[in-house]
Amino acid sequence: MIGLLVVDHGSRRATSNQQLEEVAAHLRILRPDAMVAAAHMEISEPTIAQALATLSAGGATTVQVLPYFLSEGRHISEDIPRLVAEAAAAHPGLVVAIGKALGPHPTLAALLLERSGLA
Amino acid sequence: MIGLLVVDHGSRRATSNQQLEEVAAHLRILRPDAMVAAAHMEISEPTIAQALATLSAGGATTVQVLPYFLSEGRHISEDIPRLVAEAAAAHPGLVVAIGKALGPHPTLAALLLERSGLA
Repeated sequence: MIGLLVVDHGSRRATSNQQLEEVAAHLRILRPDAMVAAAHMEISEPTIAQALATLSAGGATTVQVLPYFLSEGRHISEDIPRLVAEAAAAHPGLVVAIGKALGPHPTLAALLLERSGLA
Repeated sequence: MIGLLVVDHGSRRATSNQQLEEVAAHLRILRPDAMVAAAHMEISEPTIAQALATLSAGGATTVQVLPYFLSEGRHISEDIPRLVAEAAAAHPGLVVAIGKALGPHPTLAALLLERSGLA
């Protein structure tokens, strides 16, 4: 089974962290065949290691990490790959890949207009 | 004429700031009737005040600020409204409104999957 692990930065604000759970819920609707978990890169739990353990224990054999970030940067190029590699080391045989950040992408421009009532 | 002012956080990384120009280019394609400008909330130029001046000088009579942020937070609820109000004070008669952050939104979940080759 494929596991989807959506990862954001992590915040001290509970409402911000809770929004990632909304994203996870949307992912479950789009991919009911997958097991979906959410994790925060830092600051709050679940951590990447905790979520990866949950997915592995739940039967995921491959995990796709989905970075919930607007742009590539050090978090995407260094921090998350390091945290994922450290976490994956505890689960031999689990295949883990990391996707791209959300932007830039034409869809985001369209969504900006929609969120301002202009689309 | 309507002006669209897309605003991100601002970064020390030139590539990150440049991505906002890509977003602005996408907006110009979607709304060729509008005048589009990009600004950074902090760290780098153009500032919100500079971009608002550009839009006003270019003939914009109303400006919609589009926050290029994934989630609501202090930047959206306090910092950007304050900076926009300060900047707008220099342009009497200019009508300025501020839109919502991008997320959470089902479109972002679909885009996450697409960016990882899963959609």
